[in-house]
Amino acid sequence: MTKILSPEELEEELRAIGAAQYHDKHPFHKLLHGGKLNKGQVQAWALNRYCYQSAVPRKDAALMSRCHDRDLRREWIHRITDHDGQGDEEGGIERWLVLTDGLGLDRDYVISRKGALPETVFAVEAYVNFVRDKTLVEAVASSLTELFAPSIHKERISGMLENYDFISDDVMAYFKRRLTQAPRDANFALEYCKQNARTPEAQQGVLDALRFKTHVLWAQLDALYLAYVDPGMIPPGAFVPDAA
Amino acid sequence: MTKILSPEELEEELRAIGAAQYHDKHPFHKLLHGGKLNKGQVQAWALNRYCYQSAVPRKDAALMSRCHDRDLRREWIHRITDHDGQGDEEGGIERWLVLTDGLGLDRDYVISRKGALPETVFAVEAYVNFVRDKTLVEAVASSLTELFAPSIHKERISGMLENYDFISDDVMAYFKRRLTQAPRDANFALEYCKQNARTPEAQQGVLDALRFKTHVLWAQLDALYLAYVDPGMIPPGAFVPDAA
Repeated sequence: MTKILSPEELEEELRAIGAAQYHDKHPFHKLLHGGKLNKGQVQAWALNRYCYQSAVPRKDAALMSRCHDRDLRREWIHRITDHDGQGDEEGGIERWLVLTDGLGLDRDYVISRKGALPETVFAVEAYVNFVRDKTLVEAVASSLTELFAPSIHKERISGMLENYDFISDDVMAYFKRRLTQAPRDANFALEYCKQNARTPEAQQGVLDALRFKTHVLWAQLDALYLAYVDPGMIPPGAFVPDAA
Repeated sequence: MTKILSPEELEEELRAIGAAQYHDKHPFHKLLHGGKLNKGQVQAWALNRYCYQSAVPRKDAALMSRCHDRDLRREWIHRITDHDGQGDEEGGIERWLVLTDGLGLDRDYVISRKGALPETVFAVEAYVNFVRDKTLVEAVASSLTELFAPSIHKERISGMLENYDFISDDVMAYFKRRLTQAPRDANFALEYCKQNARTPEAQQGVLDALRFKTHVLWAQLDALYLAYVDPGMIPPGAFVPDAA
């Protein structure tokens, strides 16, 4: 791409990336939401996904650590408190632990990340490093998968509640909260990218950042699929479900 | 040092570092607080010190970006909002800009950091990088100069108000606020270091981190002294006072 895009064209291309390669299309999610997994497989998903959830505040702090624009930092900081909580507000990570509690996983084991797949940790830390090392607008752009999150969260809430007797309404609180948080954040980030990526190179960087992030999400499901679905090759040291 | 210190001994050694080499002892501060500088020299100090002030939230975000402990992140985050502000609270950086406004400096010029001394920028960014790259307890320890800040702030408030007709009470708001913020933060960080540096190597790291930080502060005053006091060699591109 060598020509400069209008802000609207940039948004179109970003949305096309989501339509093509957001992880809602991954076979693992089809199984998860369609009730095709057993409890052990859902445990494996929640345990691994904890690594991602718990890294989000570090990722957002990494963005702030290289941001010289005080206004942007003031806007961005609520993403950290959304996940870490603040005062009486428990935060998204705590809500995720309610889910892993509900699935019967030991909380200290989940937090230790010792049972996580190596590929999960690599993908998640690649995201933190990307945000720390790339340009600021690329760092912002890597959050844009949130544009596509509400539909997958809605599908997940209804699908999992309907299909699994071990999933109850209260353990799905994380996803319900994200239904309002994610669109607000995604819209801000989208406007930021449209306004601040004003050269072909910067726009290419923004598009590549979103592609990168879809890879971060996709790779985590690939690893789950290989280890816990087909062919079911669990790496040494990784979580082994009792009832798989 | 090869033997392990008790927490109390570690605190003693930390306080000894402050007593020996905190920047309250720098000749530039003696001149600043004693009313021995002209307005241009005070402008140069405030302009350069802005670089430091404005980097503090990035430094604290850098610490959070590598902190896997949610409780510590929840404790640490107020340091960012103390400086950046949040909602109606203006924050320390804004209060610093009130000082530079009051000294007649153009706000955009101050924020641009274009007139800052190269040594200032290097020292400040070395601090941000240190916090990002060293161990977590070393990163925390590098904040411990705050143990020694209240006395210098008190001396500064009274000395500058008394000695300079271009300094008024309202522009000193930054320092007044820090009189309560700094001790609270310093006490937390000190306890953290005493509890978490439990090997001789970790304790050496903590002591070195505080020494490093005193160098960061000292180097900034060295640069100001050379450029604006004696011999008055202002580097090309750096701020030139009108009335020096």
